[in-house]
Amino acid sequence: MSAPLVFYTNPLSRSGIVHWMLEELAVPYTTEVLEFGADLKTPEYLSINPMGKVPAIRHGDVVVTEAAAICAYLADAFPEAGLAPPLSERADYYRWLFFAAGPVEMASSLRSAGIEPTAEQQVSFGHGCYEHVIEALVLAVKDKRYIAGGRFSAADVYLGSHLRWGMSFGSLEKRPEFETYCQSLEQRPALQRVTAITRQAMEDSGWDMD
Amino acid sequence: MSAPLVFYTNPLSRSGIVHWMLEELAVPYTTEVLEFGADLKTPEYLSINPMGKVPAIRHGDVVVTEAAAICAYLADAFPEAGLAPPLSERADYYRWLFFAAGPVEMASSLRSAGIEPTAEQQVSFGHGCYEHVIEALVLAVKDKRYIAGGRFSAADVYLGSHLRWGMSFGSLEKRPEFETYCQSLEQRPALQRVTAITRQAMEDSGWDMD
Ligand SMILES: N[C@@H](CCC(=O)N[C@@H](CS)C(=O)NCC(=O)O)C(=O)O
Ligand SMILES: N[C@@H](CCC(=O)N[C@@H](CS)C(=O)NCC(=O)O)C(=O)O
Repeated sequence: MSAPLVFYTNPLSRSGIVHWMLEELAVPYTTEVLEFGADLKTPEYLSINPMGKVPAIRHGDVVVTEAAAICAYLADAFPEAGLAPPLSERADYYRWLFFAAGPVEMASSLRSAGIEPTAEQQVSFGHGCYEHVIEALVLAVKDKRYIAGGRFSAADVYLGSHLRWGMSFGSLEKRPEFETYCQSLEQRPALQRVTAITRQAMEDSGWDMD
Repeated sequence: MSAPLVFYTNPLSRSGIVHWMLEELAVPYTTEVLEFGADLKTPEYLSINPMGKVPAIRHGDVVVTEAAAICAYLADAFPEAGLAPPLSERADYYRWLFFAAGPVEMASSLRSAGIEPTAEQQVSFGHGCYEHVIEALVLAVKDKRYIAGGRFSAADVYLGSHLRWGMSFGSLEKRPEFETYCQSLEQRPALQRVTAITRQAMEDSGWDMD
């Protein structure tokens, strides 16, 4: 598909996940940088993402929002890049994409906010509690170079981004298994390019954790 | 694929989502019912889902957890059922599967728990706030019989289940757009079979919302 691909982003946001994914694809795309605040809430941008959040992409006539959905979409839309397993072998691929998009997101958000679910809430909350999410992730990445199908995929981009980001900012603790898994992802040139751009953006903005 | 398919479930849980999906596939499967509590925390079950939660499936040698991941996996593993769009047309499919698994899950869980994100938390929380999730969902289902690709898919099973469940139990409010969307899903025989089983299980257990 050669439809134009537009990336709506702010470099200091979950957009970094999609940026890495786009760089892995090695296809041309244009970038629209949006500042936090009013830029994200214009009628024009809300028609792309009614949540008024980045990241989002437009690919020809279609829009995709949600970083995990964008990774999964791009992997399927550009099969030449080999970033999704064959249809019959997607058990771990979907399992860990959705685990990261649901339980990991919720665990790290609540952790950052200092909210601890009660025992009763742990039964109904999809992530149970922070500790269970960490232990499940340790088991998931332990002794595995890649999370799904024995090869690098969009699920590594998404899960790896959460682990890297979470460990840098303290919303996910450092575990040796996470560090080993992330270290091998750091070797990807696409990630190195994006990391350099993100570091520059952080410096330029004097941005820190808050 | 004729590998054995096992469904780990409790009828009064998010397992109902996967139950509906399995009934749509019209393939044979066996069911293992687990009670809340100790049943979910045995070493045997934890080796399937280290989170100690239902639903989960085993399909031959592979295990899948996370209701949304199971729906996406089954749709791809059983292509004859036609429950996933072609690979090049999955924008809305992934967008709303992941929107439901991330933002909708978090919005409805926090709503049930009476937790309201502050303005600052809304910027970093992936769901922003409950109200934004509701408004985005209204736009998503408005005037659409199906959420993705103009035909029924696993994304309708997953999103429709959240809307039905959320509206029944008050974790998502009733909106006419949600009711219209769900009404057409109610016509599916697979959902009617599962609803009858769920109702019976609720009666048997004297279960209510808490
Ligand atoms: N669930 C979304 C979350 C996106 C999100 O929360 N983005 C933040 C930055 S990381 C944002 O745009 N915040 C601006 C705002 O809410 O105004 C995803 O996974 O893509
Ligand atoms: N993120 C999981 C959530 C599963 C979940 O929280 N299941 C609940 C029932 S709806 C459960 O098994 N609770 C029992 C427990 O935590 O002990 C999914 O979407 O499948």
